[in-house]
Amino acid sequence: MIKAPNTRAEALQRDAADPLADRAALFDLPDGVTYLVGHSLGPPPKGARDRLAAAQADWAGDLVRSWNSASWIDLAERTGDRLASLIGAQPGEVIVADSVSVNLFKLAAAALPQARTYALFVEEDEFPTDQYIAAGLGGLSGAEVRLLAPGGSFEALRAGGVVIKSAVNYRSSEVTDIAAHEREARRQGALIIWDLSHATGVLNLKLAADGAVLAAGCTYKYLNGGPGAPAFVFVAGELSPKLATPLPGWMGHAAPFAFDGKYVPRDGVARFASGTPPILSLAALSGALEAIEGVDLGQLQAKARALGALAVARAQAMGLDVLSPVEDGRRGGHVSLRIAEGYPVVQALAARGVMADFRAPDTVRFGFSPLFLSYQAVWNAMAALAEILESRSWDQPQFHARAKVT
Amino acid sequence: MIKAPNTRAEALQRDAADPLADRAALFDLPDGVTYLVGHSLGPPPKGARDRLAAAQADWAGDLVRSWNSASWIDLAERTGDRLASLIGAQPGEVIVADSVSVNLFKLAAAALPQARTYALFVEEDEFPTDQYIAAGLGGLSGAEVRLLAPGGSFEALRAGGVVIKSAVNYRSSEVTDIAAHEREARRQGALIIWDLSHATGVLNLKLAADGAVLAAGCTYKYLNGGPGAPAFVFVAGELSPKLATPLPGWMGHAAPFAFDGKYVPRDGVARFASGTPPILSLAALSGALEAIEGVDLGQLQAKARALGALAVARAQAMGLDVLSPVEDGRRGGHVSLRIAEGYPVVQALAARGVMADFRAPDTVRFGFSPLFLSYQAVWNAMAALAEILESRSWDQPQFHARAKVT
Repeated sequence: MIKAPNTRAEALQRDAADPLADRAALFDLPDGVTYLVGHSLGPPPKGARDRLAAAQADWAGDLVRSWNSASWIDLAERTGDRLASLIGAQPGEVIVADSVSVNLFKLAAAALPQARTYALFVEEDEFPTDQYIAAGLGGLSGAEVRLLAPGGSFEALRAGGVVIKSAVNYRSSEVTDIAAHEREARRQGALIIWDLSHATGVLNLKLAADGAVLAAGCTYKYLNGGPGAPAFVFVAGELSPKLATPLPGWMGHAAPFAFDGKYVPRDGVARFASGTPPILSLAALSGALEAIEGVDLGQLQAKARALGALAVARAQAMGLDVLSPVEDGRRGGHVSLRIAEGYPVVQALAARGVMADFRAPDTVRFGFSPLFLSYQAVWNAMAALAEILESRSWDQPQFHARAKVT
Repeated sequence: MIKAPNTRAEALQRDAADPLADRAALFDLPDGVTYLVGHSLGPPPKGARDRLAAAQADWAGDLVRSWNSASWIDLAERTGDRLASLIGAQPGEVIVADSVSVNLFKLAAAALPQARTYALFVEEDEFPTDQYIAAGLGGLSGAEVRLLAPGGSFEALRAGGVVIKSAVNYRSSEVTDIAAHEREARRQGALIIWDLSHATGVLNLKLAADGAVLAAGCTYKYLNGGPGAPAFVFVAGELSPKLATPLPGWMGHAAPFAFDGKYVPRDGVARFASGTPPILSLAALSGALEAIEGVDLGQLQAKARALGALAVARAQAMGLDVLSPVEDGRRGGHVSLRIAEGYPVVQALAARGVMADFRAPDTVRFGFSPLFLSYQAVWNAMAALAEILESRSWDQPQFHARAKVT
């Protein structure tokens, strides 16, 4: 159990001893904002701005030659290699490509022929896209698709199919034991595709050590890669030669500029590249990674969990219903609370400069990005929440007005 | 037949009368460069820079709220609506999403159940990705995939399957008669997916009038959207309700923020959205379109063809083998010449500030983007080519050095 600061003074002490404290200076954050939505869209690291400016200058100056001169041609691979070190994988096992949705589809289609049975499994409380993609692939391929009750993945591995499973649940923040699932998958001839969207950049992921072989994830949450930044694919080195992507685009070809009608996949995970990647967005992601590189992932995870523990303790002191696991080791980087009047409460927090997010019908999520948040800021945010609830200051008309998206 | 300028003076006269002459000022082009590679990567319009800067400011300032406050949430749709007017389609029939590769896959998978036979056809001289994607989809879905001899699409329509066909061939620049193909497709119960990558932004496309119902295309060529800018999907309004995407991501859901496990597609082409789009790249594209909007597409096509006619006439005068159709109405925006020493010739041109591209083994392509090129510039480029060939100045060691990508 992580000891959370119990007073504002203790929070300040933790900040003074925080080995990641200097990382906040690498971000462009507006004054007066405590940003607890890094689990949805990370704020811009300065490196993202710099790399994007460089890519624009390359486009304007060297034009199409920049594919060579600025090495755009292998930017997706090079960025993937850097991502590999953030998830416990090796260079050549990760490439940046497409969206999480498309990548889950590619991996699931490639995995089905390798599993003992031609069937797909997804828990019904997974991020909906994961379910839709399984259904879409089932319709096209004839694979059986079965929706599982929450937590049903481990049992489902016995069927020997392909399971799509989040490492951290998007709503509850519950963490899955990757190693235990992979041991069972191996016994059963099943394959697991890990959705790392809510795990990368906040957990100390050790995919290789845990036996994981397939994963996809997004880069715009705790990796701060920018809105809709391209996603990534992980395939363990020993598995990739056996896999065929269903979306063989020219960027995944061994010799893309031979313009040969016969598809010869590239070695390693690079075969899961498809069309031309969005270089401007990819350049921003590439620069954003500078804000996390060099950080000890154990310290990263410990700080995220300590900030979460602070929030959990304060929420319990307010008598709130904590939807996320209170046991720190079972919780990812965000904490979800059930607050009946969650929508206006989140607006009232925003009016005080504290940004959180609301998920209908009654879930308020706080994301604890450990790179730019301080203990003091989280302490103050929870104190603001307590005041808003106690004074019922959320109950004002302007806090009930609905925006299109929250 | 378009009358091409026959002298430098005539080229200058054409520039003086060019209704698109003022468009060049909307681009950031380096001094001293004649850019004849707009068919590969368009140069940056100033609008792209401005919209990208605005998106970055939104990211930094309003953070995740920008999905609402900056309307990122419907940027792919709004940009699609603007693209619709450039291809002869209606708002609601075009959306920006993913890459051409992924979009061809989505459309082909959705079209197969609607065609008379469950089979896919691609000509073997199509852009290779189109062939790979057909093969990938065939492997997954069980659809028969047949490669056709060049020009074999029209015949193949009799089989009643799904044909993937470029409106302009990437290598030869040969234009396909969309209306004639669609009439035959309708008779035969076949469906055609048009790859508009080399056609959009340079031809006066009239998809609705020609009876086209399905298309995809890229935006980084004649639309100047930026390197790897996201692609687009076109589905005719009457057809979209019948189609199911095989890649149902959350952005294509009727209520994406309900996070419902059941997939309910959005109306119209928007169901072909999948994951979160790369907003920074999409913002650049959105701004880039300002450089073409308001242009008469008939004038756009006429200028591109006149510039091409100039190049064809000069090439013929040099005794070069013209691979592209010399009949103007059969030719898209680029002109391909066969030059045995094409690689060093292209390097020698570059040394004189004329950028063209080389495709192994012996094809030199010149792209005639009508928005920023002048008749005079193209005249001078062809004069430079003649001098290089006549003087054999290409035969110097520095022009033979190979870059990784050309």
